[in-house]
Amino acid sequence: MNTLTIIKIGGNIIDDPSRLEGFLGSFAAIQGAKILVHGGGRIATQMGERLGITPHYVDGRRITDAETLELVTMVYGGLVNKQVVARLQSVGCNAIGLSGSDGGVLRGRKRPVGKLDYGFVGDLDAASVNVRLLQTLMDAGLTPVLAPLTYDGASGLLNTNADTIAQEIAKAFSQIAAVALIYCFEKGGLLLDAEDESSVISSIGERGFRELVGAGAVSGGMIPKLDNAFAAIRAGVQKVIIGRAEDLPGLISGSAGTQIQ
Amino acid sequence: MNTLTIIKIGGNIIDDPSRLEGFLGSFAAIQGAKILVHGGGRIATQMGERLGITPHYVDGRRITDAETLELVTMVYGGLVNKQVVARLQSVGCNAIGLSGSDGGVLRGRKRPVGKLDYGFVGDLDAASVNVRLLQTLMDAGLTPVLAPLTYDGASGLLNTNADTIAQEIAKAFSQIAAVALIYCFEKGGLLLDAEDESSVISSIGERGFRELVGAGAVSGGMIPKLDNAFAAIRAGVQKVIIGRAEDLPGLISGSAGTQIQ
Repeated sequence: MNTLTIIKIGGNIIDDPSRLEGFLGSFAAIQGAKILVHGGGRIATQMGERLGITPHYVDGRRITDAETLELVTMVYGGLVNKQVVARLQSVGCNAIGLSGSDGGVLRGRKRPVGKLDYGFVGDLDAASVNVRLLQTLMDAGLTPVLAPLTYDGASGLLNTNADTIAQEIAKAFSQIAAVALIYCFEKGGLLLDAEDESSVISSIGERGFRELVGAGAVSGGMIPKLDNAFAAIRAGVQKVIIGRAEDLPGLISGSAGTQIQ
Repeated sequence: MNTLTIIKIGGNIIDDPSRLEGFLGSFAAIQGAKILVHGGGRIATQMGERLGITPHYVDGRRITDAETLELVTMVYGGLVNKQVVARLQSVGCNAIGLSGSDGGVLRGRKRPVGKLDYGFVGDLDAASVNVRLLQTLMDAGLTPVLAPLTYDGASGLLNTNADTIAQEIAKAFSQIAAVALIYCFEKGGLLLDAEDESSVISSIGERGFRELVGAGAVSGGMIPKLDNAFAAIRAGVQKVIIGRAEDLPGLISGSAGTQIQ
Protein backbone atom coordinates (compact mmCIF):
# COMPACT_ATOMS: atom_id res chain seq x y z
CA MET A 1 0.00 0.00 0.00
CA ASN A 2 1.55 3.33 -1.05
CA THR A 3 -1.24 5.76 -0.36
CA LEU A 4 -4.36 5.62 1.77
CA THR A 5 -7.25 8.10 1.78
CA ILE A 6 -9.34 8.23 4.97
CA ILE A 7 -12.54 10.27 4.89
CA LYS A 8 -14.86 11.14 7.73
CA ILE A 9 -18.46 12.22 7.15
CA GLY A 10 -20.95 13.34 9.77
CA GLY A 11 -24.63 13.91 10.26
CA ASN A 12 -24.90 16.90 7.93
CA ILE A 13 -24.31 14.64 4.93
CA ILE A 14 -25.73 11.35 6.29
CA ASP A 15 -29.11 13.00 6.95
CA ASP A 16 -29.45 14.28 3.37
CA PRO A 17 -30.05 11.37 0.92
CA SER A 18 -29.32 13.28 -2.28
CA ARG A 19 -26.13 14.92 -0.98
CA LEU A 20 -25.06 11.57 0.48
CA GLU A 21 -25.58 9.89 -2.88
CA GLY A 22 -23.47 12.52 -4.65
CA PHE A 23 -20.72 12.19 -2.06
CA LEU A 24 -20.69 8.39 -2.27
CA GLY A 25 -20.32 8.59 -6.06
CA SER A 26 -17.23 10.80 -5.66
CA PHE A 27 -15.91 8.56 -2.88
CA ALA A 28 -16.28 5.46 -5.08
CA ALA A 29 -14.21 7.19 -7.78
CA ILE A 30 -11.16 7.70 -5.53
CA GLN A 31 -8.23 5.65 -6.79
CA GLY A 32 -6.25 3.44 -4.45
CA ALA A 33 -6.88 2.23 -0.92
CA LYS A 34 -9.54 4.14 1.01
CA ILE A 35 -11.51 3.99 4.23
CA LEU A 36 -14.77 5.75 5.10
CA VAL A 37 -15.67 6.60 8.71
CA HIS A 38 -19.18 7.81 9.36
CA GLY A 39 -20.80 9.48 12.33
CA GLY A 40 -24.39 9.40 13.39
CA GLY A 41 -26.90 12.05 12.48
CA ARG A 42 -30.38 13.16 13.37
CA ILE A 43 -31.75 9.74 12.47
CA ALA A 44 -30.51 8.32 15.81
CA THR A 45 -32.24 11.13 17.70
CA GLN A 46 -35.45 10.64 15.71
CA MET A 47 -35.38 6.87 16.22
CA GLY A 48 -34.69 7.39 19.94
CA GLU A 49 -37.73 9.67 20.20
CA ARG A 50 -39.92 7.09 18.45
CA LEU A 51 -38.63 4.42 20.83
CA GLY A 52 -39.37 6.64 23.80
CA ILE A 53 -35.72 6.83 24.87
CA THR A 54 -35.16 9.98 26.90
CA PRO A 55 -31.74 11.50 26.28
CA HIS A 56 -29.80 12.09 29.48
CA TYR A 57 -27.60 15.14 29.71
CA VAL A 58 -25.18 16.04 32.49
CA ASP A 59 -23.54 19.48 32.26
CA GLY A 60 -24.86 19.74 28.70
CA ARG A 61 -23.15 16.48 27.64
CA ARG A 62 -25.18 13.55 26.40
CA ILE A 63 -24.67 10.37 28.42
CA THR A 64 -24.69 7.00 26.64
CA ASP A 65 -26.77 4.79 28.93
CA ALA A 66 -27.51 1.11 28.12
CA GLU A 67 -30.62 2.01 26.14
CA THR A 68 -28.80 4.64 24.11
CA LEU A 69 -25.98 2.21 23.37
CA GLU A 70 -28.58 -0.23 22.01
CA LEU A 71 -30.01 2.60 19.91
CA VAL A 72 -26.69 3.67 18.40
CA THR A 73 -25.69 0.03 17.78
CA MET A 74 -28.90 -0.37 15.76
CA VAL A 75 -28.81 2.96 13.97
CA TYR A 76 -25.07 3.52 13.40
CA GLY A 77 -23.92 -0.12 13.19
CA GLY A 78 -27.04 -1.36 11.40
CA LEU A 79 -29.12 1.17 9.50
CA VAL A 80 -26.61 3.87 8.53
CA ASN A 81 -23.64 1.55 8.03
CA LYS A 82 -25.54 -0.99 5.90
CA GLN A 83 -27.29 1.67 3.81
CA VAL A 84 -23.99 3.40 3.06
CA VAL A 85 -22.40 0.05 2.15
CA ALA A 86 -25.30 -0.95 -0.14
CA ARG A 87 -25.17 2.43 -1.91
CA LEU A 88 -21.41 2.14 -2.39
CA GLN A 89 -21.83 -1.37 -3.79
CA SER A 90 -24.38 0.01 -6.25
CA VAL A 91 -21.81 2.45 -7.63
CA GLY A 92 -19.10 -0.19 -7.98
CA CYS A 93 -17.22 0.29 -4.72
CA ASN A 94 -16.70 -3.03 -2.95
CA ALA A 95 -17.47 -1.72 0.54
CA ILE A 96 -17.56 -3.75 3.74
CA GLY A 97 -19.22 -2.30 6.85
CA LEU A 98 -17.58 -2.75 10.24
CA SER A 99 -18.28 -1.84 13.84
CA GLY A 100 -15.47 -2.02 16.37
CA SER A 101 -16.07 -5.63 17.40
CA ASP A 102 -15.97 -6.96 13.82
CA GLY A 103 -12.62 -8.69 13.58
CA GLY A 104 -11.66 -6.64 16.64
CA VAL A 105 -11.02 -3.75 14.25
CA LEU A 106 -11.24 -0.89 16.78
CA ARG A 107 -10.58 -1.43 20.44
CA GLY A 108 -11.93 1.28 22.71
CA ARG A 109 -11.52 1.99 26.40
CA LYS A 110 -14.44 3.24 28.42
CA ARG A 111 -13.80 6.90 29.13
CA PRO A 112 -12.57 7.14 32.73
CA VAL A 113 -15.12 8.43 35.21
CA GLY A 114 -13.90 11.80 36.37
CA LYS A 115 -16.24 14.67 37.18
CA LEU A 116 -18.63 12.98 34.76
CA ASP A 117 -19.50 9.39 33.86
CA TYR A 118 -20.25 9.42 30.14
CA GLY A 119 -21.58 5.86 30.32
CA PHE A 120 -20.86 3.59 27.36
CA VAL A 121 -18.49 6.01 25.66
CA GLY A 122 -15.09 4.89 24.48
CA ASP A 123 -11.85 6.47 23.43
CA LEU A 124 -9.12 4.86 21.36
CA ASP A 125 -5.58 5.47 20.27
CA ALA A 126 -3.61 4.47 17.18
CA ALA A 127 -2.31 1.32 18.92
CA SER A 128 -5.86 0.00 19.29
CA VAL A 129 -6.53 0.07 15.53
CA ASN A 130 -6.28 -3.41 13.95
CA VAL A 131 -4.09 -2.31 11.03
CA ARG A 132 -3.49 -5.89 9.93
CA LEU A 133 -7.19 -6.63 9.47
CA LEU A 134 -7.85 -3.38 7.59
CA GLN A 135 -4.87 -4.08 5.37
CA THR A 136 -6.02 -7.66 4.67
CA LEU A 137 -9.42 -6.32 3.63
CA MET A 138 -7.96 -3.57 1.43
CA ASP A 139 -5.48 -6.01 -0.14
CA ALA A 140 -8.53 -8.11 -1.09
CA GLY A 141 -9.98 -5.07 -2.90
CA LEU A 142 -12.46 -4.16 -0.17
CA THR A 143 -13.19 -0.66 1.15
CA PRO A 144 -13.81 -0.60 4.91
CA VAL A 145 -16.75 1.56 6.07
CA LEU A 146 -16.55 2.13 9.82
CA ALA A 147 -19.39 2.95 12.20
CA PRO A 148 -18.56 5.12 15.25
CA LEU A 149 -18.51 2.18 17.66
CA THR A 150 -15.46 0.61 19.31
CA TYR A 151 -15.16 -2.80 20.97
CA ASP A 152 -14.73 -2.72 24.75
CA GLY A 153 -12.59 -5.88 24.88
CA ALA A 154 -15.29 -7.73 26.79
CA SER A 155 -18.68 -8.39 25.22
CA GLY A 156 -19.88 -4.93 24.34
CA LEU A 157 -19.50 -1.85 22.19
CA LEU A 158 -18.77 1.76 23.07
CA ASN A 159 -20.12 4.90 21.45
CA THR A 160 -17.05 6.64 20.01
CA ASN A 161 -16.42 9.94 18.25
CA ALA A 162 -16.03 9.42 14.50
CA ASP A 163 -13.46 12.25 14.15
CA THR A 164 -11.26 10.48 16.69
CA ILE A 165 -11.65 7.12 14.94
CA ALA A 166 -10.62 8.62 11.59
CA GLN A 167 -7.66 10.36 13.19
CA GLU A 168 -6.36 7.31 15.05
CA ILE A 169 -6.67 5.11 11.94
CA ALA A 170 -4.74 7.76 10.01
CA LYS A 171 -1.99 7.84 12.64
CA ALA A 172 -1.79 4.04 12.75
CA PHE A 173 -1.35 3.80 8.95
CA SER A 174 1.07 6.74 8.70
CA GLN A 175 3.87 4.29 9.59
CA ILE A 176 3.32 2.28 6.41
CA ALA A 177 1.61 4.59 3.88
CA ALA A 178 1.26 8.19 2.74
CA VAL A 179 -2.05 8.98 4.40
CA ALA A 180 -4.47 11.76 3.40
CA LEU A 181 -7.07 12.39 6.11
CA ILE A 182 -10.14 14.34 5.01
CA TYR A 183 -12.70 15.69 7.45
CA CYS A 184 -15.97 16.65 5.80
CA PHE A 185 -18.04 19.16 7.70
CA GLU A 186 -20.64 21.86 7.09
CA LYS A 187 -18.26 24.57 5.87
CA GLY A 188 -16.00 24.94 2.85
CA GLY A 189 -12.89 24.92 5.06
CA LEU A 190 -11.28 27.17 7.63
CA LEU A 191 -12.74 30.63 7.00
CA LEU A 192 -10.83 33.84 7.48
CA ASP A 193 -14.20 35.47 8.12
CA ALA A 194 -16.72 33.07 9.70
CA GLU A 195 -19.55 34.98 7.99
CA ASP A 196 -18.01 34.81 4.53
CA GLU A 197 -18.13 31.38 2.89
CA SER A 198 -15.79 32.59 0.15
CA SER A 199 -12.97 33.36 2.61
CA VAL A 200 -11.64 29.78 2.74
CA ILE A 201 -7.96 29.64 3.70
CA SER A 202 -6.50 27.14 1.23
CA SER A 203 -3.60 26.04 3.41
CA ILE A 204 -2.39 26.74 6.92
CA GLY A 205 0.41 25.69 9.27
CA GLU A 206 0.32 25.53 13.05
CA ARG A 207 2.01 28.91 13.55
CA GLY A 208 -0.37 30.70 11.21
CA PHE A 209 -3.30 29.04 12.96
CA ARG A 210 -2.11 30.13 16.43
CA GLU A 211 -1.86 33.70 15.15
CA LEU A 212 -5.44 33.55 13.90
CA VAL A 213 -6.60 32.12 17.24
CA GLY A 214 -4.67 34.84 19.07
CA ALA A 215 -6.37 37.49 16.92
CA GLY A 216 -9.78 36.00 17.80
CA ALA A 217 -10.46 35.15 14.15
CA VAL A 218 -11.25 31.47 14.74
CA SER A 219 -14.49 30.42 16.38
CA GLY A 220 -14.92 27.86 19.21
CA GLY A 221 -15.71 24.58 17.46
CA MET A 222 -12.91 25.00 14.92
CA ILE A 223 -10.14 25.11 17.53
CA PRO A 224 -10.32 21.47 18.73
CA LYS A 225 -10.85 20.33 15.12
CA LEU A 226 -7.66 22.03 13.98
CA ASP A 227 -5.78 20.99 17.13
CA ASN A 228 -6.58 17.38 16.21
CA ALA A 229 -5.45 17.96 12.64
CA PHE A 230 -2.07 19.35 13.77
CA ALA A 231 -1.68 16.41 16.17
CA ALA A 232 -2.23 14.03 13.23
CA ILE A 233 0.39 15.85 11.14
CA ARG A 234 2.87 15.69 14.01
CA ALA A 235 2.18 11.93 14.26
CA GLY A 236 3.21 11.45 10.63
CA VAL A 237 -0.04 11.79 8.67
CA GLN A 238 0.97 13.34 5.35
CA LYS A 239 -2.05 15.55 4.65
CA VAL A 240 -5.09 16.64 6.59
CA ILE A 241 -7.84 18.44 4.69
CA ILE A 242 -11.09 19.92 5.95
CA GLY A 243 -14.00 20.97 3.77
CA ARG A 244 -17.40 20.15 2.39
CA ALA A 245 -18.36 16.59 1.35
CA GLU A 246 -19.77 17.92 -1.94
CA ASP A 247 -16.33 19.26 -2.83
CA LEU A 248 -14.63 15.87 -2.42
CA PRO A 249 -12.86 15.81 -5.82
CA GLY A 250 -11.54 19.34 -5.10
CA LEU A 251 -10.52 18.39 -1.55
CA ILE A 252 -8.42 15.59 -3.01
CA SER A 253 -6.91 17.60 -5.88
CA GLY A 254 -6.24 20.61 -3.66
CA SER A 255 -8.63 23.04 -5.35
CA ALA A 256 -11.09 23.15 -2.45
CA GLY A 257 -11.04 23.06 1.35
CA THR A 258 -8.24 23.91 3.75
CA GLN A 259 -5.09 21.85 3.76
CA ILE A 260 -3.45 21.61 7.16
CA GLN A 261 0.27 21.16 7.08
CA MET B 1 -9.86 -25.49 3.67
CA ASN B 2 -10.68 -29.14 4.32
CA THR B 3 -13.74 -28.91 6.49
CA LEU B 4 -16.29 -26.20 7.12
CA THR B 5 -18.98 -26.13 9.80
CA ILE B 6 -22.01 -23.91 9.11
CA ILE B 7 -24.46 -23.36 11.94
CA LYS B 8 -27.82 -21.63 11.86
CA ILE B 9 -29.50 -20.31 14.99
CA GLY B 10 -32.93 -18.72 15.25
CA GLY B 11 -35.05 -16.64 17.58
CA ASN B 12 -35.47 -19.32 20.26
CA ILE B 13 -31.81 -19.00 21.17
CA ILE B 14 -31.19 -15.35 20.21
CA ASP B 15 -33.97 -14.18 22.54
CA ASP B 16 -32.50 -15.96 25.57
CA PRO B 17 -29.25 -14.27 26.72
CA SER B 18 -28.02 -17.08 28.98
CA ARG B 19 -28.69 -19.87 26.46
CA LEU B 20 -27.15 -17.71 23.73
CA GLU B 21 -24.03 -17.22 25.83
CA GLY B 22 -23.69 -20.98 26.41
CA PHE B 23 -24.17 -21.67 22.72
CA LEU B 24 -21.60 -19.07 21.67
CA GLY B 25 -19.04 -20.59 24.04
CA SER B 26 -19.51 -24.00 22.35
CA PHE B 27 -19.46 -22.39 18.92
CA ALA B 28 -16.16 -20.62 19.68
CA ALA B 29 -14.65 -24.01 20.65
CA ILE B 30 -15.32 -25.60 17.23
CA GLN B 31 -12.05 -26.38 15.49
CA GLY B 32 -11.46 -25.35 11.89
CA ALA B 33 -13.32 -22.99 9.58
CA LYS B 34 -16.83 -22.08 10.64
CA ILE B 35 -19.67 -19.75 9.76
CA LEU B 36 -22.62 -18.67 11.91
CA VAL B 37 -25.93 -17.60 10.33
CA HIS B 38 -28.49 -16.05 12.64
CA GLY B 39 -32.15 -15.28 12.24
CA GLY B 40 -34.20 -12.63 13.92
CA GLY B 41 -36.23 -13.19 17.04
CA ARG B 42 -38.88 -11.52 19.10
CA ILE B 43 -36.64 -8.50 19.58
CA ALA B 44 -37.51 -7.25 16.07
CA THR B 45 -41.23 -7.56 16.82
CA GLN B 46 -40.80 -5.81 20.16
CA MET B 47 -38.73 -3.02 18.62
CA GLY B 48 -41.30 -2.70 15.82
CA GLU B 49 -44.08 -2.29 18.39
CA ARG B 50 -42.11 0.39 20.24
CA LEU B 51 -41.51 2.21 16.94
CA GLY B 52 -45.22 2.01 16.11
CA ILE B 53 -44.63 -0.09 13.00
CA THR B 54 -47.78 -2.06 12.22
CA PRO B 55 -47.01 -5.49 10.81
CA HIS B 56 -48.79 -6.17 7.52
CA TYR B 57 -50.04 -9.64 6.84
CA VAL B 58 -51.56 -10.95 3.62
CA ASP B 59 -52.96 -14.50 3.73
CA GLY B 60 -51.25 -14.97 7.09
CA ARG B 61 -47.82 -14.05 5.67
CA ARG B 62 -45.89 -11.08 6.96
CA ILE B 63 -45.03 -8.54 4.27
CA THR B 64 -41.71 -6.67 4.45
CA ASP B 65 -42.65 -3.08 3.62
CA ALA B 66 -40.07 -0.25 3.54
CA GLU B 67 -40.49 0.50 7.24
CA THR B 68 -40.11 -3.16 8.19
CA LEU B 69 -36.98 -3.44 6.05
CA GLU B 70 -35.52 -0.49 7.96
CA LEU B 71 -36.45 -2.24 11.22
CA VAL B 72 -34.83 -5.57 10.33
CA THR B 73 -31.73 -3.81 8.95
CA MET B 74 -31.35 -2.11 12.34
CA VAL B 75 -32.21 -5.07 14.51
CA TYR B 76 -30.75 -8.02 12.56
CA GLY B 77 -27.86 -6.23 10.81
CA GLY B 78 -27.09 -3.92 13.74
CA LEU B 79 -28.19 -4.97 17.20
CA VAL B 80 -28.30 -8.79 16.99
CA ASN B 81 -25.34 -9.17 14.62
CA LYS B 82 -23.04 -6.83 16.53
CA GLN B 83 -23.98 -8.23 19.95
CA VAL B 84 -23.30 -11.80 18.76
CA VAL B 85 -19.96 -10.70 17.28
CA ALA B 86 -18.91 -8.86 20.46
CA ARG B 87 -19.81 -11.89 22.60
CA LEU B 88 -17.85 -14.21 20.30
CA GLN B 89 -14.85 -11.87 20.46
CA SER B 90 -15.05 -11.98 24.26
CA VAL B 91 -14.67 -15.79 24.21
CA GLY B 92 -11.73 -15.72 21.82
CA CYS B 93 -13.50 -16.26 18.49
CA ASN B 94 -12.39 -13.68 15.92
CA ALA B 95 -15.87 -13.05 14.51
CA ILE B 96 -16.78 -10.57 11.78
CA GLY B 97 -20.41 -9.60 11.24
CA LEU B 98 -21.79 -9.26 7.73
CA SER B 99 -25.05 -8.36 6.05
CA GLY B 100 -25.55 -9.26 2.39
CA SER B 101 -24.20 -5.98 1.01
CA ASP B 102 -20.90 -6.20 2.93
CA GLY B 103 -18.36 -7.16 0.30
CA GLY B 104 -21.37 -8.30 -1.76
CA VAL B 105 -21.33 -11.49 0.31
CA LEU B 106 -24.91 -12.60 -0.36
CA ARG B 107 -26.79 -11.50 -3.43
CA GLY B 108 -30.57 -11.90 -3.25
CA ARG B 109 -33.33 -11.51 -5.79
CA LYS B 110 -36.60 -9.93 -4.79
CA ARG B 111 -39.13 -12.74 -4.57
CA PRO B 112 -41.23 -12.57 -7.76
CA VAL B 113 -44.69 -11.10 -7.31
CA GLY B 114 -47.17 -13.91 -7.88
CA LYS B 115 -50.42 -14.20 -5.98
CA LEU B 116 -48.66 -12.25 -3.28
CA ASP B 117 -46.09 -9.43 -3.16
CA TYR B 118 -43.89 -10.13 -0.14
CA GLY B 119 -42.28 -6.71 -0.47
CA PHE B 120 -38.56 -6.44 0.33
CA VAL B 121 -38.05 -10.18 0.64
CA GLY B 122 -35.23 -11.90 -1.20
CA ASP B 123 -34.29 -15.41 -2.17
CA LEU B 124 -30.82 -16.63 -3.11
CA ASP B 125 -29.12 -19.65 -4.56
CA ALA B 126 -25.66 -21.12 -4.11
CA ALA B 127 -24.33 -19.17 -7.13
CA SER B 128 -25.11 -15.87 -5.38
CA VAL B 129 -22.87 -16.64 -2.40
CA ASN B 130 -19.52 -14.82 -2.56
CA VAL B 131 -17.40 -17.88 -1.75
CA ARG B 132 -14.17 -16.05 -2.51
CA LEU B 133 -14.82 -13.32 0.06
CA LEU B 134 -15.87 -15.80 2.78
CA GLN B 135 -12.78 -17.85 2.05
CA THR B 136 -10.49 -14.80 2.19
CA LEU B 137 -11.93 -13.91 5.59
CA MET B 138 -11.64 -17.46 6.95
CA ASP B 139 -8.09 -17.79 5.57
CA ALA B 140 -7.29 -14.66 7.62
CA GLY B 141 -8.55 -16.46 10.75
CA LEU B 142 -11.92 -14.71 10.86
CA THR B 143 -15.30 -16.33 11.54
CA PRO B 144 -18.12 -14.82 9.44
CA VAL B 145 -21.38 -14.14 11.30
CA LEU B 146 -24.18 -13.52 8.82
CA ALA B 147 -27.40 -11.57 9.38
CA PRO B 148 -30.50 -12.71 7.42
CA LEU B 149 -30.24 -9.90 4.87
CA THR B 150 -29.19 -10.22 1.23
CA TYR B 151 -28.05 -7.47 -1.14
CA ASP B 152 -30.46 -6.64 -3.95
CA GLY B 153 -27.74 -5.71 -6.46
CA ALA B 154 -28.88 -2.09 -6.49
CA SER B 155 -28.71 0.04 -3.35
CA GLY B 156 -30.77 -1.94 -0.89
CA LEU B 157 -31.11 -5.03 1.25
CA LEU B 158 -33.73 -7.77 1.27
CA ASN B 159 -35.14 -9.67 4.23
CA THR B 160 -34.09 -13.29 3.67
CA ASN B 161 -34.76 -16.56 5.45
CA ALA B 162 -31.75 -17.59 7.56
CA ASP B 163 -32.31 -21.35 6.93
CA THR B 164 -32.05 -20.70 3.19
CA ILE B 165 -28.90 -18.60 3.60
CA ALA B 166 -27.20 -21.36 5.64
CA GLN B 167 -28.24 -23.97 3.11
CA GLU B 168 -27.05 -22.06 0.04
CA ILE B 169 -23.69 -21.24 1.65
CA ALA B 170 -23.33 -24.95 2.49
CA LYS B 171 -24.09 -25.93 -1.11
CA ALA B 172 -21.69 -23.33 -2.49
CA PHE B 173 -18.82 -24.60 -0.30
CA SER B 174 -19.58 -28.30 -0.86
CA GLN B 175 -17.56 -28.06 -4.08
CA ILE B 176 -14.36 -27.26 -2.20
CA ALA B 177 -14.76 -28.58 1.36
CA ALA B 178 -16.41 -31.27 3.46
CA VAL B 179 -19.30 -29.23 4.83
CA ALA B 180 -21.31 -29.97 7.98
CA LEU B 181 -24.53 -27.95 8.09
CA ILE B 182 -26.20 -27.73 11.50
CA TYR B 183 -29.69 -26.32 12.00
CA CYS B 184 -30.44 -25.44 15.60
CA PHE B 185 -34.11 -25.33 16.48
CA GLU B 186 -36.40 -25.79 19.47
CA LYS B 187 -36.38 -29.60 19.52
CA GLY B 188 -33.72 -32.24 20.15
CA GLY B 189 -33.99 -33.49 16.56
CA LEU B 190 -36.52 -35.34 14.43
CA LEU B 191 -38.83 -37.05 16.91
CA LEU B 192 -40.47 -40.41 16.28
CA ASP B 193 -43.22 -39.22 18.60
CA ALA B 194 -43.75 -35.44 18.49
CA GLU B 195 -44.90 -35.53 22.14
CA ASP B 196 -41.86 -37.43 23.39
CA GLU B 197 -38.63 -35.43 23.54
CA SER B 198 -36.65 -38.63 24.18
CA SER B 199 -37.71 -40.20 20.86
CA VAL B 200 -35.01 -38.45 18.78
CA ILE B 201 -34.14 -40.39 15.62
CA SER B 202 -30.36 -40.31 15.53
CA SER B 203 -29.99 -40.69 11.79
CA ILE B 204 -32.33 -40.88 8.82
CA GLY B 205 -32.17 -41.19 5.02
CA GLU B 206 -34.65 -39.86 2.50
CA ARG B 207 -36.46 -43.18 2.07
CA GLY B 208 -36.95 -43.68 5.78
CA PHE B 209 -38.20 -40.11 6.06
CA ARG B 210 -40.76 -40.56 3.26
CA GLU B 211 -42.06 -43.65 5.06
CA LEU B 212 -42.51 -41.65 8.26
CA VAL B 213 -44.30 -38.90 6.35
CA GLY B 214 -46.51 -41.50 4.66
CA ALA B 215 -47.38 -42.97 8.06
CA GLY B 216 -48.35 -39.47 9.29
CA ALA B 217 -45.60 -39.57 11.96
CA VAL B 218 -43.98 -36.25 10.97
CA SER B 219 -45.67 -32.95 11.70
CA GLY B 220 -46.15 -30.01 9.31
CA GLY B 221 -43.21 -27.70 9.98
CA MET B 222 -40.67 -30.53 9.96
CA ILE B 223 -41.42 -31.59 6.38
CA PRO B 224 -40.00 -28.50 4.57
CA LYS B 225 -37.05 -28.47 7.02
CA LEU B 226 -36.13 -32.05 6.16
CA ASP B 227 -36.86 -31.53 2.45
CA ASN B 228 -34.28 -28.74 2.49
CA ALA B 229 -31.82 -30.96 4.32
CA PHE B 230 -32.14 -33.72 1.72
CA ALA B 231 -31.76 -31.15 -1.07
CA ALA B 232 -28.49 -30.02 0.55
CA ILE B 233 -27.23 -33.61 0.76
CA ARG B 234 -28.08 -34.19 -2.90
CA ALA B 235 -26.17 -30.99 -3.75
CA GLY B 236 -23.01 -32.42 -2.13
CA VAL B 237 -23.16 -31.20 1.47
CA GLN B 238 -21.52 -33.94 3.50
CA LYS B 239 -23.60 -33.84 6.68
CA VAL B 240 -26.79 -32.08 7.75
CA ILE B 241 -27.70 -32.21 11.43
CA ILE B 242 -30.72 -30.80 13.22
CA GLY B 243 -31.05 -30.37 16.96
CA ARG B 244 -30.91 -28.07 19.94
CA ALA B 245 -28.34 -25.25 20.18
CA GLU B 246 -27.51 -26.31 23.76
CA ASP B 247 -26.43 -29.73 22.45
CA LEU B 248 -23.90 -28.25 20.00
CA PRO B 249 -20.90 -30.39 21.08
CA GLY B 250 -23.12 -33.51 20.79
CA LEU B 251 -24.51 -32.40 17.42
CA ILE B 252 -20.95 -32.18 16.14
CA SER B 253 -19.71 -35.45 17.69
CA GLY B 254 -22.85 -37.33 16.65
CA SER B 255 -24.16 -38.06 20.14
CA ALA B 256 -27.14 -35.68 19.88
CA GLY B 257 -29.60 -34.49 17.24
CA THR B 258 -30.67 -36.12 14.02
CA GLN B 259 -28.16 -36.65 11.25
CA ILE B 260 -29.67 -36.48 7.79
CA GLN B 261 -27.88 -38.56 5.20
